[in-house]
Amino acid sequence: MASWTKRKVKGVLLDISGVLFESGAGVPIDGSVEAVQRLKAAGLSVRFCTNETTMTRGMLTEKLHRLGFSMIEQEIFPPIPAICKVLQKRNLRPHLLINPKVAPDFDGVDTSDPNCVILGDATTEFNYHNLNKAFQALVAMKEPVLFSLGMGRFYREQGELLLDVGPFTKALEFAADIKAEVVGKPSQTFFTSVLEDMEVGADNVVMVGDDIVSDVGGAQSCGMLGIQVRTGKFRPQDESHLSVKPDAFADNLLAAVDLIIEASK
Amino acid sequence: MASWTKRKVKGVLLDISGVLFESGAGVPIDGSVEAVQRLKAAGLSVRFCTNETTMTRGMLTEKLHRLGFSMIEQEIFPPIPAICKVLQKRNLRPHLLINPKVAPDFDGVDTSDPNCVILGDATTEFNYHNLNKAFQALVAMKEPVLFSLGMGRFYREQGELLLDVGPFTKALEFAADIKAEVVGKPSQTFFTSVLEDMEVGADNVVMVGDDIVSDVGGAQSCGMLGIQVRTGKFRPQDESHLSVKPDAFADNLLAAVDLIIEASK
Repeated sequence: MASWTKRKVKGVLLDISGVLFESGAGVPIDGSVEAVQRLKAAGLSVRFCTNETTMTRGMLTEKLHRLGFSMIEQEIFPPIPAICKVLQKRNLRPHLLINPKVAPDFDGVDTSDPNCVILGDATTEFNYHNLNKAFQALVAMKEPVLFSLGMGRFYREQGELLLDVGPFTKALEFAADIKAEVVGKPSQTFFTSVLEDMEVGADNVVMVGDDIVSDVGGAQSCGMLGIQVRTGKFRPQDESHLSVKPDAFADNLLAAVDLIIEASK
Repeated sequence: MASWTKRKVKGVLLDISGVLFESGAGVPIDGSVEAVQRLKAAGLSVRFCTNETTMTRGMLTEKLHRLGFSMIEQEIFPPIPAICKVLQKRNLRPHLLINPKVAPDFDGVDTSDPNCVILGDATTEFNYHNLNKAFQALVAMKEPVLFSLGMGRFYREQGELLLDVGPFTKALEFAADIKAEVVGKPSQTFFTSVLEDMEVGADNVVMVGDDIVSDVGGAQSCGMLGIQVRTGKFRPQDESHLSVKPDAFADNLLAAVDLIIEASK
């Protein structure tokens, strides 16, 4: 039996930014390419679970290939393909406030006479004009529906802390007096859709991430194990977090993989 | 005894935008000039209590004079003079995210090496760059302090709903995991400072406003009476508001003054 868990691990969810590479950097985190190869060689089911909404899934796959990773596009789960399924299922037509780079992922989506608003990580598109337009679209709806692609507070890019989508979602929630539906980590619906694709029960899956609340806490709430790596947005105070206790800490993905392989035997 | 209250009214607080004039309009609301004159002629103490932070107090006074009102500048209480007193008292140096038009009201305020952030109704200055700068300033502080000049959700200007300062405060609160201090309505500290200037007890003061939560609810929480006018941002659903029950409704300020004078005798 492994030293850190009694469970047998059969599937692995990996966060991307902060685990495979540092945001904004052009190189993988040391050992992370080898780490992914070892998981696959051990016969484990692997999926990549990200709140990335500044690149299309295709762009993200290309970037990962350039860095030396070899996953296929269908193993990567960002929020946009998930929200597109929700739109179709619930017959919703969105007003979009997103990064222009991911607009192609919404090609063919009907945006006329919108009955919901979708916020992604729009970065510089988060300006007064666009936020007013999104707010006006919401209050014009009989039953306002607001989707947030993830709920991150901020991220670090090239040494600078930048606001993520979460704060802007909070702004519109307050203005329109509504509650947003989160599509992305740590939403249970989102994690469940990835587990269904893996065909492995939550009990036998471990999530590896750098965000103690969204990655580790979110996965644990769904019944999975959670390992936090000390890369990306990890901060020393995470090790004494008040509400989330990871099943294990690891210096980086390669060290996490040692723990995972130990628990897969 | 008046029909709507058993109390004797000696002092009156008036909201400005939506009560004296409609936001963005160039004319006073019908009867509002006469209404203010009647309050003064009846010997009542009158103060103007506003969350306006897109004009200096001087600009606001000039605008009101142009519209035919005759109050003096010292009778008008916007948040900026109040926050300037707080800065001095607590030895704080602000990072400002405000409307460039009110910058003169902060002349002489030390903004070097900031140890607090102040958000006003910055309108188009609320962009990704400036919000990141305010966030970065907050997280760089040992003990982050965030002030919000009012906490309005939105206002109506020339037929369009526009986001007020409140939503942006919520965004930074979430990003930096802190709670803002509100300077302006409905903060009790703010109302109390106006009551002290009037030298009338809260029991004998009535607030007239168009915002059921910030004006009427705020005043009632401080022990004052609250009358809501059916002008400005009033909406029919305010008459069945879940938590705030105004002491009276009035079609406009002139009708409110009838009620007030009745209760002053």
